[in-house]
Amino acid sequence: MKDFSLLKEMVGIHAPSGNEGAMTKFLLDYIEKNKKNWKVQPEIFSGDGFQDCIILKFGNPRTAIFAHTDSIGFTVKYGKELIKVGGPVTEDGFKLCGTDSKGYFETELVVLENEDEPTKYEYLLDREIDRGTDLSFLPNWREDERFIQSCYMDNRLGVWTALQVAETLENGVICFSTYEEHRGGSVGFLGKYIYENWSVKQALISDITWVTEGILHDKGVAISIRDSGIPRKSYVDRIRSLAKESGIAYQLEVESAGGSDGNQLQASPYPFDWCFIGAPEDHVHTPNEKVHKNDIAAMVDLYVYLMKHL
Amino acid sequence: MKDFSLLKEMVGIHAPSGNEGAMTKFLLDYIEKNKKNWKVQPEIFSGDGFQDCIILKFGNPRTAIFAHTDSIGFTVKYGKELIKVGGPVTEDGFKLCGTDSKGYFETELVVLENEDEPTKYEYLLDREIDRGTDLSFLPNWREDERFIQSCYMDNRLGVWTALQVAETLENGVICFSTYEEHRGGSVGFLGKYIYENWSVKQALISDITWVTEGILHDKGVAISIRDSGIPRKSYVDRIRSLAKESGIAYQLEVESAGGSDGNQLQASPYPFDWCFIGAPEDHVHTPNEKVHKNDIAAMVDLYVYLMKHL
Amino acid sequence: MKDFSLLKEMVGIHAPSGNEGAMTKFLLDYIEKNKKNWKVQPEIFSGDGFQDCIILKFGNPRTAIFAHTDSIGFTVKYGKELIKVGGPVTEDGFKLCGTDSKGYFETELVVLENEDEPTKYEYLLDREIDRGTDLSFLPNWREDERFIQSCYMDNRLGVWTALQVAETLENGVICFSTYEEHRGGSVGFLGKYIYENWSVKQALISDITWVTEGILHDKGVAISIRDSGIPRKSYVDRIRSLAKESGIAYQLEVESAGGSDGNQLQASPYPFDWCFIGAPEDHVHTPNEKVHKNDIAAMVDLYVYLMKHL
Repeated sequence: MKDFSLLKEMVGIHAPSGNEGAMTKFLLDYIEKNKKNWKVQPEIFSGDGFQDCIILKFGNPRTAIFAHTDSIGFTVKYGKELIKVGGPVTEDGFKLCGTDSKGYFETELVVLENEDEPTKYEYLLDREIDRGTDLSFLPNWREDERFIQSCYMDNRLGVWTALQVAETLENGVICFSTYEEHRGGSVGFLGKYIYENWSVKQALISDITWVTEGILHDKGVAISIRDSGIPRKSYVDRIRSLAKESGIAYQLEVESAGGSDGNQLQASPYPFDWCFIGAPEDHVHTPNEKVHKNDIAAMVDLYVYLMKHL
Repeated sequence: MKDFSLLKEMVGIHAPSGNEGAMTKFLLDYIEKNKKNWKVQPEIFSGDGFQDCIILKFGNPRTAIFAHTDSIGFTVKYGKELIKVGGPVTEDGFKLCGTDSKGYFETELVVLENEDEPTKYEYLLDREIDRGTDLSFLPNWREDERFIQSCYMDNRLGVWTALQVAETLENGVICFSTYEEHRGGSVGFLGKYIYENWSVKQALISDITWVTEGILHDKGVAISIRDSGIPRKSYVDRIRSLAKESGIAYQLEVESAGGSDGNQLQASPYPFDWCFIGAPEDHVHTPNEKVHKNDIAAMVDLYVYLMKHL
Repeated sequence: MKDFSLLKEMVGIHAPSGNEGAMTKFLLDYIEKNKKNWKVQPEIFSGDGFQDCIILKFGNPRTAIFAHTDSIGFTVKYGKELIKVGGPVTEDGFKLCGTDSKGYFETELVVLENEDEPTKYEYLLDREIDRGTDLSFLPNWREDERFIQSCYMDNRLGVWTALQVAETLENGVICFSTYEEHRGGSVGFLGKYIYENWSVKQALISDITWVTEGILHDKGVAISIRDSGIPRKSYVDRIRSLAKESGIAYQLEVESAGGSDGNQLQASPYPFDWCFIGAPEDHVHTPNEKVHKNDIAAMVDLYVYLMKHL
């Protein structure tokens, strides 16, 4: 059984869209400490000109993994009001946390439904939180033999997967992106960098998807044929053919909604092919995102296989 | 009377957004066979780095025609459910076709309206279609002395027009784009290529528009002053002035909705001017798109004139 | 007390999105006449390849001010119908003006509410206006000791502020952008130009925001922590820290809606940091936009300070 302590640590890091610095620092530290055990030493690009993103370049890359490091959350508006960062599910009593000028705090979400007005959100706390402070779900790791349940499996699990792949990766790029949950904004310059410098134009989106009527727990990693965006059929067909050849468990997703860093690559002025590949979860965008361990294993295995053969 | 056999052939090619490969192959074959009869031999750019797009470069270009090769359609979701590719009109009984691992099939659309839920769509067929298969309208060409009626006049007619212009074009670019019907995604890199290599930043969008209270059959090709996007007035004014000078029949369109590859150029980081110019149709985005032959003739004539004088 | 005659002149210039030429000409004339009195002579970029935008480059720039020159308005559709340019508030009787082939006209807005259909808009005039003509609010300057009230404070005041800053600016860029009110489209190539040529990737959005429950008149210039877009926290934190140090009056804005050229920079393939900083107004997007003079003074002062120290 895999050890998930690294993943457990990462789901507890506060990094709502626009404020990913803590994840960036964590990842740079992790990479620095662990890369000596990796098969190939990557070049590391970060800092000035990369905002809070990181690019790892291994050998002679053909394909890039994109894994977003940001999470959904909330921002303190005026008074006790909260507004959304990305699209969190909003349920009365969800536990939240953050840090402002007065220090760390834990609080909970209050949902105020009004008949004639849009629903409002507030926090419940005996002190006022600084205007503009961002909040995230309170970490709440639950693990048994079959499942992991926690906030922010989306997308710390996608990041974690990329880090597992890094251990043996010989040729490829890993991009840790930001802002995926809230309108995007970093994939454009990441795509530009890897396309212009290394002619990389094949992308795999390492992210977490939905358990639905067509996508079930323990049926393997999901390869998405489409969501709100449609990847190029010829590229997805190559991936499906490799997945079949690999013998790794996978299932085919077809959705009309939802999106990913793939849509951002599609909108960029670079000719990227992209495909979303990720384990499914239920209780999406709540503190209770639940993923089957077998699907996690399949996700890692398929990424390792595809980065070799695509 | 013009011969429309080429157009008839093209409306029957299966090429929903993301799966334009068959159109690309058809066009490359057509260009290869016919270019010897063209006034100027174009350079042809396609394949690696162009996805399923094609760029034709004639002489010293100042202006580019953009014609999208993709069409609306449907994707098979789970079970018998269909979801949309782009924005097809959905009417019970519309005939559809496609090909999956079991071969070619014809089917029809079933519209399931529920009181409290969003409308759902299914296919009616005695066998199951592979998950993720894309469907298009069944070809159904109808032609008389005045009108052509068929699925996919939008935008095989825009493509066909560009091919007519190619016959005598001396200086100019023709871009066959993809993904126009579904969120776009190729115009960015096409625009980048022609701007960076040949400083081309004037664009004409060869596409089909709507018969409305202000735009009528047999009143000439429509020059669009705006739709959801607003092209630069100074550029549209130059086009209107040339159109007037040409003596070719045209009408002025003003809409608040709808969009085209023009919006994609507008959103790109290149300073493109663009204007939508196309014949109007009624029964938009159905299998019954109907265009007047005189408007088609005016469309071709105006493109020929503008590519010379703009 | 500042003299606002320049601002008064600018709010009267007709420049709906897509038709900013008159503002561009006015600005180029103004800059030509006045730059001799500026501390540093800027390089001026405009014309071919810049559409109706202008870039001013002073010294060795680190930071760029973006101020959009376009305004909201209306376009004449078919018959007497009007459609929106950007998002104007629509109130029966609002005075409008424009120019078509028959010359200058003044008219007013008629709002036609129907029970089962979307609201329609018409103009009230004893002659027909040419199809496609764009209309703007009739200039209506009102000024007292404390307030200025007029159409188009958004964003002639942002432009005016940039021109005040220009007088003493030693190092920096000023971008006069277009299309901000209607889907954007020029910030991409402006950002590309200043990033590629001078490595500028810090931006300040000089625009006007909303008086709300959290943002009040005469409480200083608003620094926006977020609107529909979320700027990077580390960048906003640096700005807040400088603002505090400056002693200039400011207030912190947190909104879930609204957007600016900042969102366009965010969507571009360049790693821009951006922050919206502007005086608040009430009666947003009406002919009666009202701003406190003290907030205008604070806006200018803060821009001067930030362009020196950021």
